[in-house]
Order: sequence, then C-alpha cells, then structure tokens
Amino acid sequence: MVTANIRAILYRGKERLKKMKLEISREEYARRTNAVLDSMKEKDLDAFIFWNSTSIFYLTGFAFIPTERPMCLVLTKDGQKIMFVPRLEVEHAQETPEVHEVWHYPEYPGEKHPMNVLAGLLSERGLGGGNLGADADGYGSSQGYRGPKLSEVLPSAKVVVLRDLVEKLRMIKSQEEIALIRESAKWGNLAHALLQEYSKPGRTENEISMRASLEATMMMIKTLGKSYNPLSAGRAGASAGFRGQIGPNSALPHAITINAVLKPGDVLVTGAGASVAGYGSELERTMFVGEPDSKKRRFFQLMKEVQEVAFENIRPGRKCSEVDAAVRAFYDRHNLWEYWRHHTGHALGLLGHEAPFFDIGDDTVIQPGMVFSVEPGLYVPGLGGFRHSDTVVVTETGIDFITYYPRELENLICG
Amino acid sequence: MVTANIRAILYRGKERLKKMKLEISREEYARRTNAVLDSMKEKDLDAFIFWNSTSIFYLTGFAFIPTERPMCLVLTKDGQKIMFVPRLEVEHAQETPEVHEVWHYPEYPGEKHPMNVLAGLLSERGLGGGNLGADADGYGSSQGYRGPKLSEVLPSAKVVVLRDLVEKLRMIKSQEEIALIRESAKWGNLAHALLQEYSKPGRTENEISMRASLEATMMMIKTLGKSYNPLSAGRAGASAGFRGQIGPNSALPHAITINAVLKPGDVLVTGAGASVAGYGSELERTMFVGEPDSKKRRFFQLMKEVQEVAFENIRPGRKCSEVDAAVRAFYDRHNLWEYWRHHTGHALGLLGHEAPFFDIGDDTVIQPGMVFSVEPGLYVPGLGGFRHSDTVVVTETGIDFITYYPRELENLICG
Repeated sequence: MVTANIRAILYRGKERLKKMKLEISREEYARRTNAVLDSMKEKDLDAFIFWNSTSIFYLTGFAFIPTERPMCLVLTKDGQKIMFVPRLEVEHAQETPEVHEVWHYPEYPGEKHPMNVLAGLLSERGLGGGNLGADADGYGSSQGYRGPKLSEVLPSAKVVVLRDLVEKLRMIKSQEEIALIRESAKWGNLAHALLQEYSKPGRTENEISMRASLEATMMMIKTLGKSYNPLSAGRAGASAGFRGQIGPNSALPHAITINAVLKPGDVLVTGAGASVAGYGSELERTMFVGEPDSKKRRFFQLMKEVQEVAFENIRPGRKCSEVDAAVRAFYDRHNLWEYWRHHTGHALGLLGHEAPFFDIGDDTVIQPGMVFSVEPGLYVPGLGGFRHSDTVVVTETGIDFITYYPRELENLICG
Repeated sequence: MVTANIRAILYRGKERLKKMKLEISREEYARRTNAVLDSMKEKDLDAFIFWNSTSIFYLTGFAFIPTERPMCLVLTKDGQKIMFVPRLEVEHAQETPEVHEVWHYPEYPGEKHPMNVLAGLLSERGLGGGNLGADADGYGSSQGYRGPKLSEVLPSAKVVVLRDLVEKLRMIKSQEEIALIRESAKWGNLAHALLQEYSKPGRTENEISMRASLEATMMMIKTLGKSYNPLSAGRAGASAGFRGQIGPNSALPHAITINAVLKPGDVLVTGAGASVAGYGSELERTMFVGEPDSKKRRFFQLMKEVQEVAFENIRPGRKCSEVDAAVRAFYDRHNLWEYWRHHTGHALGLLGHEAPFFDIGDDTVIQPGMVFSVEPGLYVPGLGGFRHSDTVVVTETGIDFITYYPRELENLICG
C-alpha cells in the first residue's frame, strides 16, 4: 500500500517539520491585526466588529462551529481583541492566545437577546456612541437565528459597514500561509494517490473515497504527530473523492455524490485536499477506468492544453480577466464553446473558493503571493467531464506549482 | 464485526424498504408549493425569489453546492418553478423533476453581473415591475461574492422581504420527512455502535471515527442499494465521531477535532447521524474509557435525570420555553449552575440546527410533527462533559423517540 512514491512524500513531510511549525506565528497575527488597525485609523473608527467566522479565524486563530448563536470579534482601536460568545464557548475562546478578553451572553434566544447584551457591553466599554466599523450590520445564520441590526441596538453609534477589509488582506498569502497550503497539497496528493490505487471497476464511489481519505488521514497524523492541528470546524485530515463525477455524470461540473459503481470506460473527475491549520489546497484530475478511446483522448489532450494556456498567462501585473481571456481564445480557436461551463479558476486558502477569480469580468491585478486554482474544463454530455485543477502560487515572475500530481494521461489510467 | 445487534438493525432496514421510498413524493412537493402559493396570494405577490439553498431544496429537491455564483428559485404565482443558475449548473438543474424551467447566466462575475441578467429575465417574463416576494434582498456568500440588491436591479418592482416563509413550514415535519429522519437515525445508530466498539485506549479520535463512519456508510449503501440517494451537497452516508470531546476536553460543548488519543479514565461525548435524502438526525452519548469513578458516575446520573425531565415536559400545546424552564429548575434544585453551558435542545431536519429552540426565550408552541434534539448537559472543567442527545418527534400526546441507542451507563463503557 505504501509505494515508493508515497514514502517519498512522507519523507518530505518529516523534513519540512524540522524547519517549520504548522501554525501561524504570533508575529503574523500581529501583522494582520496592524493592517486592520491602520484601516480603522484612516476611517477614525473606535472599534471594528467582525461577524464573519473566517475573518475571526484570520485575526485570532479561534476556530469554532458557527450556529444560530451569534458570535463576533470586537477589535478596539488600541488592538484589544474581545470575543463575544455564548456561554458554551467561553472556555474554548479563552484557550486562544490571540483572544485577550471574552465577553459572553447566556444563550440564544435567551431572556435578553444577545444583540442587546452586546450593546450593553460595548456601551460599558465606552463604545456605545462612537464610530464602529463592522463587516455586516448584525449577525446572519440560516440555522434559525433572528435578531436586530447592530445599528438598531446601538442607535447613538455610527455603524460603518466595511465588508471587504479582511477579505482584501486574505488575497495575498504570506510565506507562512503558503507553507501551510503546500503542506495541505502534500497530503491531498497522498489521498489522491490512494484514490487512484483503489479506483477499480465494481467498487463504489463512497467506498473508494472514504477508504483513501481514512488512510491518508492516518498517515498524515502519524507523520506530523503533535504538530498537526486541523484547526478547522468543518474539515480534518486529508480527503479525496469524486463528488459524483463518474462516467457520463462527470459532465456535470458540480455534480453531487451519487454513489456510482465504477465501470470500464468511465471518465472520472476527482478532487483531493487536506486541512492544515485551517488552510486547504485543490487538486483535481481527470482519470479513466481502463484505456480511453480516441474521442476521450482528444478531449483530455485539449483540456491539458487549455490548462497550460492558463498557466502561461498567469504573472504579476496582469489582470485576472486576461488569464480567462487567453483561455477563452483557446475555446474560440478550437471551436469548443459547446463544452465550456465555467471560468478558469479562483483564489483559495482558508475557504475553498475565494476572490479574486480568473474570470473575464474580474479585473483584479495579479500579485505575488496570490494562490489560485487553475481549472478550465471541457464537459461533453453523455461522454464525461475533462478537468484538471492545480493550485499555484504567483511569484515575482510567474507561478510556482503547489500541487504536483502527474498530469499526463498515461499516469491517470485506473483499474 | 457484524454483531447480532447490528444484524438486527440491517434487517429492520430492509423491512422498511418494502414499505417506503427514501425520497419526498411529488405529492408532498405539491403540498409544500401550495402552502407557499397561499402565502403569496395573501400578500398579492406575483412571484417569490428564494436565495436560501435549504428553501430551494425543500421546494424542489434540487441539491447543489452553494458557491460565489448566485443561484435562486423563482416561484411564480401560477406555480411555475424556475431555477436561475450559472452555466455550469444547467444540466444538473434540468435533471430535477420539480424544476420546470432553467434560466442561466454564463459565469460570475462575468461580463454582465448575474443580478442584471436575472433582472432582464424577470422583466421579459413580465415580473420586472410587480410585487416580488424574496427571502433576502439579494444573494449573499462568504466565498468572494459581491453584487447589487434585487431592489437595486429592479427599481420598478416592489420587493417584499419575507425571510421566514419556508422556515416556518419546515418546523412541522410530514410523515414522509419523519420516515427519512428515522431512517437516518438507524444508520447513525450503526455508526455509533461501531464507534463504541472501536473506542479503545491508545487509538486516536480520527482513526476511530473515520473507520466507524466508513464501515457504517458501506453497510448503509449495501443495504439500501439504489433506493439510497444522499441528496445533499455536504453530507453523504453515516458518520460518528467525538469532535474533540475526549477526556477533559469533553468539557467544551463545541470542541473541535484535536485528534486526541483515548486513555483509560477518559470521558467521551460522541455524535452520530446519517444523511438520507437530505435529512439528518442527532444521536450523542456520554461514554467512558474503562469504569468511571464515583464522581463521574454522579454527573452521568444527574445528566440522565435532567434529560428525562426534558422528555417528560415535551408535549403539544406547551411552549418551548417551558421545557427549558423545567430543565433549569433541575439545575436550581441540584445546585448545578456551575456546570450549565447551553439550553435544552433545538429542532432539526434538513439542517443540523433549526428553529424553534428549547430555550427560556423561545415561546413557540410545541406542535405534533416537530422534531427536536433533547440534550441538556453538564460540563465539569478538568473532568469532562456529560451530555446525551436524543432526537424525538412530537406526537398528539407527547413524544416518540427517533434515536434508540442505549442510554444506561453500563452500556456505555468502552475499552
């Protein structure tokens, strides 16, 4: 089961461990916080309130399960980080070094609405009437939450909604973040290697993907030992799967699991990654159960070429839209629009999809440190889908690959 | 591995299969749609726009992966269901029998913003200037989406935001929904039985939970065969785990996975469930690695008693708050407030947490067909957490249990 290839990966994992801790340093949290404080100073804000759980994690490293119970981070202009949480999260928040103070309410909905408790606590701290920044004017959740806006419970404060503050910071990844994303890709690679090994005719989607994910996760944990902390509410360990993209169903770019049984002749579109200190990566491959026929080979070859067009067009100073435009010119040249379904890629890091996008409508300038998926695809109804996705980081001159799984057809035949 | 107990569960699985399909019937979709149409008529609405993916699934059965690309369901007053999707979801949406028509835009952000495409399509259909209901005034996503409000792109329409329309319908579960939740509980029970079997000193959290989940899912799929469709973007199969609630860390009600190694003396708080046609259930148990000492026995006993207080107080016609009040009186009587962390329970079904809540602040009247978790807990810093969660359905006179895993201490010792 542990092939030479996999051993090489494990060895690289151990080697890296000597050089780095799999976490974000206190210094980097300070840099992030200072960047926000600078923006707050510009706008003369006394405090900023973050409801977005990804922003809270980015600024504090506090990972929690978002529910109907509102939670927010209050960042004061002097850099104090206060978490406002329900009673059940108090001790959990207190464990987080980057959280300086924990305020709490008993429960939601409770006898007094949590938003009114928050208003009272802010007022006690002298923040009830000042200039308050916020990433949203109150809490939102689909899990049964209802409540007033922040501006309603604090009528004497001026609430300035700045939704993008942290999202903009997150667009450029630091060396620490890139190292975590690289570590994620390593274990995604292992999960994918096992997925390919277990992809045989007669086996079901769930069996293959759950077995590959279980074994890759166990290897990952045993290799990294105590240095590994998933630090993520939703994800832990490594995973690989098909998400329903098996046989003709692979022609649906966002299919969902159908528990298909693999058959000779099936086209497979895979996906793999791992959660490392909250960061992920994206690896997707088009594979075949048995030798593909000439029609499938042709679409595979075109897909590989169009992905290479994208790779060649990513460099700092260009616009994201220019990458998509170059890819679209390939669809024009080869008369492939019938098989086009989506743009070329998206940023990623703490979330699976982040802005900016390699899309004809996104004129964001590409900068070193941005991390993107590159995944133009061809989808042929009745035949299958053809998509590789690689994660790349933008350098001073072009790109470095973060994923490194084989891209060639002869390495992607299963069964 | 397959004990007599597990075989019994499998047998019941097959027996149930003869009587029912594991899906929501066309008739039930019609009932749901008619209930929304009635509300629309009352408010003289020409159409209603649903952005919430759970509401879309409830009204159409269309399960998809929500991303930065906006998607909505347009329900016209004559009952036509139109899905507005990005190009990549067209064929996927067209496969859904309850979706009558699919509108699409090329991509997000695209050359023309999807919201403007939607405004144009609504106007072509004569809905650009009428009374439009909506569950939100536009799309929201943390994955890099930005865009105008519905009321901004349709300045001549009157947009009426009614956020709760479908959420209120979802509070009372039909017989079909209850059957799916019961089926979910059955496979959650199997996953939990395996979790308990594999919980031995020296094993890690991830190993135990991933192995139990993999095997339970395989059993579930083999038993249910083609009748099983997870129909959920996020979940598939059965799962059981600890979510970090191992040893002293179990005193954190919402811990996250820490990949703990089980040790003799550990208190464990578990969780198990399964996704069946999009519906879930909730089973949680307090277990012990080896024989617990008298202090742990005492907290276990109190936890079991307070859960029984909750069971006895749930009946139609009462308020949700009265159940929590009865539980709170138990904390008073036994001087347990030091160990209180959260309210008594929450509704569930398509989402893991739904309104209403067994909370002192929720005066919703309990009605037959509501499905709740019942899970008051005691959390003792340094020692551990003590919580069972059972899923119950409200009947004409009280409750029926949906989960049925043993609750007694002597059945919950591992190792």
